[in-house]
Amino acid sequence: MLPFDILEYQQRLSHTKKRMEDCGIDVLLITDPANMNYLSGYDAWSFYVHQMLVIVIDEDQPLWIGRYLDANGARLTTWIYEENVIAYPDHYVHSDQHHPMDFISEILIQIGQGNRTVGVEMDHYYFTGKALEQLRKGLPNARFKDATLLVNKVRMIKSDQEIEYMRRAAQIADLAMQKGVESIYPGVRECDTASEIYAHLIKGTPHYGGEYPAIVPLLPTGDRTSIPHLTWSDRPFVDGNAVIIELAGCYKRYHVPLARTISIGQPNEQLKQVTPVVLEGIQAVLQKAKPGITCGELEETWRTTIKKHGYEKEARLGYSVGLNYPPDWGEHTGSIRKGDPTVLQQNMTFHLIPALWFNKDGIEISETFRVTESGSERFTSYPQELIIRDHLDNGQIS
Amino acid sequence: MLPFDILEYQQRLSHTKKRMEDCGIDVLLITDPANMNYLSGYDAWSFYVHQMLVIVIDEDQPLWIGRYLDANGARLTTWIYEENVIAYPDHYVHSDQHHPMDFISEILIQIGQGNRTVGVEMDHYYFTGKALEQLRKGLPNARFKDATLLVNKVRMIKSDQEIEYMRRAAQIADLAMQKGVESIYPGVRECDTASEIYAHLIKGTPHYGGEYPAIVPLLPTGDRTSIPHLTWSDRPFVDGNAVIIELAGCYKRYHVPLARTISIGQPNEQLKQVTPVVLEGIQAVLQKAKPGITCGELEETWRTTIKKHGYEKEARLGYSVGLNYPPDWGEHTGSIRKGDPTVLQQNMTFHLIPALWFNKDGIEISETFRVTESGSERFTSYPQELIIRDHLDNGQIS
Repeated sequence: MLPFDILEYQQRLSHTKKRMEDCGIDVLLITDPANMNYLSGYDAWSFYVHQMLVIVIDEDQPLWIGRYLDANGARLTTWIYEENVIAYPDHYVHSDQHHPMDFISEILIQIGQGNRTVGVEMDHYYFTGKALEQLRKGLPNARFKDATLLVNKVRMIKSDQEIEYMRRAAQIADLAMQKGVESIYPGVRECDTASEIYAHLIKGTPHYGGEYPAIVPLLPTGDRTSIPHLTWSDRPFVDGNAVIIELAGCYKRYHVPLARTISIGQPNEQLKQVTPVVLEGIQAVLQKAKPGITCGELEETWRTTIKKHGYEKEARLGYSVGLNYPPDWGEHTGSIRKGDPTVLQQNMTFHLIPALWFNKDGIEISETFRVTESGSERFTSYPQELIIRDHLDNGQIS
Repeated sequence: MLPFDILEYQQRLSHTKKRMEDCGIDVLLITDPANMNYLSGYDAWSFYVHQMLVIVIDEDQPLWIGRYLDANGARLTTWIYEENVIAYPDHYVHSDQHHPMDFISEILIQIGQGNRTVGVEMDHYYFTGKALEQLRKGLPNARFKDATLLVNKVRMIKSDQEIEYMRRAAQIADLAMQKGVESIYPGVRECDTASEIYAHLIKGTPHYGGEYPAIVPLLPTGDRTSIPHLTWSDRPFVDGNAVIIELAGCYKRYHVPLARTISIGQPNEQLKQVTPVVLEGIQAVLQKAKPGITCGELEETWRTTIKKHGYEKEARLGYSVGLNYPPDWGEHTGSIRKGDPTVLQQNMTFHLIPALWFNKDGIEISETFRVTESGSERFTSYPQELIIRDHLDNGQIS
């Protein structure tokens, strides 16, 4: 049932405890669903209610605390002992009378943790301002420390099994991209292509069923290609427009994102000119990447490569990627941007997405890569190029 | 471009300001993407970075403050004037050096709002503990008030245009349910059915393209039907098992959820016995619902109806539903549960999901309904029954 050997979970836990010790944290309250999954295996769409994984530094087992409706899910999907799954009653759910953090505070006091140093993921989605305030009230003798990214940093270097899951996610990404691209014709609606992409992301391959990605497929079109985070509409594609597809295959919650730019009909001059620059930049970064290089140096490589051709890009180029839940597949640790000091190590994984956006349009061609012993390797095999969907008079694509 | 007339946005804003006034709030910082959309039209998958809509009680226009990459999206999808779209640079994104709330605090001080009473959505997703702390540091002369659910409460009563969008979402829900159910055969994988459902949710109808629902389709199967929030796997369906499908059609971000229970082959005795009880309970609640009745009275109706047959259910039965973004389509205001004092009013909309879960399995049959002038009406038209997928020897379904 568990996607990883129990020893792998125990190793993750011990790495986490080492960091807790370094930070002087006795009790770590984990809200990030990816971090909960990473340490316990817990996997359910229940993060819309308050829930936590509690790591006590001198206890072998984590505690799962959540809504009682979800406790069976915790029993089924984690390696946590039955008695460590603790459920709060339903009157705590979305109530202005009762807050789940009051319940969690009481539990922590009952198990003798009320006067220790408590780490909380201060800037993670789902750890609300109210949750912080209620915990402070409920645990007046505890000291609080910010543990944002503590577990995320443990997650950066993937195990061989995690890499294997990402390879399967990559097969799904390749397939969904191919089917999505093939569906694009003038007159087809954006939502029809999004539907095709989704269908294949979820169906997966005959061997590996797909899962929901942490971000929906994005496919800005025409002058919206300059606005990367708009979702699809039901407008039809128009000949002469470009479409950017950004998607991720997902397997066992591991993501491999992939972006491509598609020209419907022959590309305009700007796209024609900028494509080889982006491709040269990507190649330069992938060749530069190896253990010991920093994320900042990767950005510098990109910047100097495209500058030769007169281009500049201000936004970051990429980020660490892997296990995740909505609303983001990025890990929020290493970013490929100016001055980022993250040092690449073997089996770190990044989404390199050096998009160029102009006033009225943009181009995105991306690769997810793994840092190998001596370099880097792509996960997907989809052609790294500007894709041209030129429809002929007989309705065929050239 | 905007899904609603500009007058409708202005009316929503004026209702919001009325509530701000009642609560003594001068400046409202809105983090909930549904509330941002409700007041401004803003619609993008950008809520994985910090962003806000700022309502100043004595200013006509809201301010949108977010990542500079997303500012074009704010210009395109909202009715906010160009100069009220304010963007922070990319080095604030997922950084441990710079926090977007510092930027937002500076803006508020610059526009003379630094010493006023500031409402924050304390318990909304995406308003993190860190965001609260940074705002408090950045605005030392402001007084903070909890404004959780302030805008959500304005959202409870829908306009005719909102109801129309929910009717379109209902058509999509009916279609996706039908296609999902038709795909279920022994040997088909759960992910194949999830794929079919997703494809139709997103494609929508020929007239109305679908959008991503705020929760993925859930389809617990076999003994997992007792665990409502697990997502699909790639295991094949087995003859004799039950499947619960819970999905929502989504149009212009308005949701109509729908759940049904499907028996693969003939249902077991428990399912046969409990189905008419659930259906009787649903009918009783829908007949009871009308303006003036409380949510608590609806729960009482359900409870006494099923108790006659010896059943009890502890969890809540339903909740207010409508406009939303991941991770939840519920509005977090009225809940159909014991003692809830919410008084039904015309054009409130609820998802009534009186599931019964037992130790090893469960049943869910749900309806999304609108409170009418004198009663209630369902949005979807999918048959309200236990669905039996009995495959014959020739592979046909009876």
